[in-house]
Amino acid sequence: MKEIVIRQLAERGVELMDIAELVRELQRPYSPNLTPEVCLSMVGAVLEKREVQHSILVGIALDTMAEDGNMLEPLRSIVVEDEPLFGVDEILALGITNVYGTIGLTNFGYLDKVKPGILRVLNNHPEKVHTFLDDIVAGIAAAASARIAHNIFK
Amino acid sequence: MKEIVIRQLAERGVELMDIAELVRELQRPYSPNLTPEVCLSMVGAVLEKREVQHSILVGIALDTMAEDGNMLEPLRSIVVEDEPLFGVDEILALGITNVYGTIGLTNFGYLDKVKPGILRVLNNHPEKVHTFLDDIVAGIAAAASARIAHNIFK
Amino acid sequence: MKEIVIRQLAERGVELMDIAELVRELQRPYSPNLTPEVCLSMVGAVLEKREVQHSILVGIALDTMAEDGNMLEPLRSIVVEDEPLFGVDEILALGITNVYGTIGLTNFGYLDKVKPGILRVLNNHPEKVHTFLDDIVAGIAAAASARIAHNIFK
Amino acid sequence: MKEIVIRQLAERGVELMDIAELVRELQRPYSPNLTPEVCLSMVGAVLEKREVQHSILVGIALDTMAEDGNMLEPLRSIVVEDEPLFGVDEILALGITNVYGTIGLTNFGYLDKVKPGILRVLNNHPEKVHTFLDDIVAGIAAAASARIAHNIFK
Repeated sequence: MKEIVIRQLAERGVELMDIAELVRELQRPYSPNLTPEVCLSMVGAVLEKREVQHSILVGIALDTMAEDGNMLEPLRSIVVEDEPLFGVDEILALGITNVYGTIGLTNFGYLDKVKPGILRVLNNHPEKVHTFLDDIVAGIAAAASARIAHNIFK
Repeated sequence: MKEIVIRQLAERGVELMDIAELVRELQRPYSPNLTPEVCLSMVGAVLEKREVQHSILVGIALDTMAEDGNMLEPLRSIVVEDEPLFGVDEILALGITNVYGTIGLTNFGYLDKVKPGILRVLNNHPEKVHTFLDDIVAGIAAAASARIAHNIFK
Repeated sequence: MKEIVIRQLAERGVELMDIAELVRELQRPYSPNLTPEVCLSMVGAVLEKREVQHSILVGIALDTMAEDGNMLEPLRSIVVEDEPLFGVDEILALGITNVYGTIGLTNFGYLDKVKPGILRVLNNHPEKVHTFLDDIVAGIAAAASARIAHNIFK
Repeated sequence: MKEIVIRQLAERGVELMDIAELVRELQRPYSPNLTPEVCLSMVGAVLEKREVQHSILVGIALDTMAEDGNMLEPLRSIVVEDEPLFGVDEILALGITNVYGTIGLTNFGYLDKVKPGILRVLNNHPEKVHTFLDDIVAGIAAAASARIAHNIFK
């Protein structure tokens, strides 16, 4: 299952190293010497979790449906335009973010607001629909950061 | 938008009166004289909320996609069989349940476990996929009950 | 830390076997042959989790404060009477319930509504304040059940 | 009740105008002409909500207990030092943040990470314990921002 999820992320333009970069940026103030390899292994550990895999598959299915026109109106327009009051993408991502406890919440919110790295790329794509994917990627990075915090402080 | 949501619920086999019945059952121990009309008006008030409307549209879209075969494997099988570890339906419903605060949580869990009334009908349907819909209906009933509690005790 | 948590639970009238009994009742429909020992070991595993330990300590501190009169009004009366619109106890318990994903939510709501076993004892105590403790105990039992589901279905 | 909450916030060093300032900063990119008065009235509306009032009272009670030494160890040290794995403060604040839907989540996480204005003052206080209060204030500001978004886009 993990391989399927990694493949679907790649088909939507997200490599695990892009997510590891977000983790590294989040952790820089606390662990300036964190290597990309460690960040990547934490991202990998998050993707082992069943509930994370399910949320990713559902989010990508919704983005793709909206993109291909296989979604009824008015939902399709709401998703395509990521209407400001649409919060289902954040709810779905929360199931990922919280996988190592609520300490991931802060990092998720920060990434979702500042949109560094791959998040900006996803968000500014002229054609593709990434309404769910950008929150999912932020959720994975936030959960991986929470996992690092657990390892450091436990 | 509210009309669209009510129509989509009806097309999937759920009348607002079915949900009002769940509310009445939930509230029976506290308000034995609650009329069906009051319960129905509370359900109507829940359906005014933008985040509730969005969650309903997304949940129905996912059920329908899985039903029609417009969903990639392995997600389709997971949704069709409502695999025991699949929790995205509960997450989505939580966005509805919490619309009047966390006091709706208890009622949601109870309905989702005992599955009275329309919930049993949805859950036992031999052909249709109601993986998301049954949690959504339980979420609406739980939120409407929370609203009644707010009116009584405030 | 785990020992401290177990001791505080016992001082408030909750033995781990009481919680294991709730788990056994929750799982009876799915695993009728589950032994009390297995349930107890699952409860023990939930209590290893740092966020679970924190929520328990905070909840017991709040109950005790209200009981001893070390809490300002109007909060004290709200907690002592477990006012119907008070939902902080459910929020706190949610941090426990979700420790193995959102599949624990249903069981939490069911326990909180039906209040079997130790939950009824806590809830009906004539003198002690158990506003937070009963939700915490339900949360631990729901999380332990989710852990069993993960073991069975993974 | 609202007056009690406002008074308790003031006694802990938080004026409503401090929170309104956070709202204004959050909304600057979207509504550069938002007046302090409008922000203040939105903060006031958030404080009308019963679940917000309850969360504030509980959070301040916990901070004060830890500060005054009326809290058992090891919880007291965990709260005083706001241990990195302690997430109960974020959970409690979530009950505030979500009062107008999950769209408040992003702003909460951003504020909690960047800690502008009053949040920095609270966080750097040499003697007082503000482990819960800073998350509560961020939660109120995030909810007030969500309310503005609802007014603009609805």
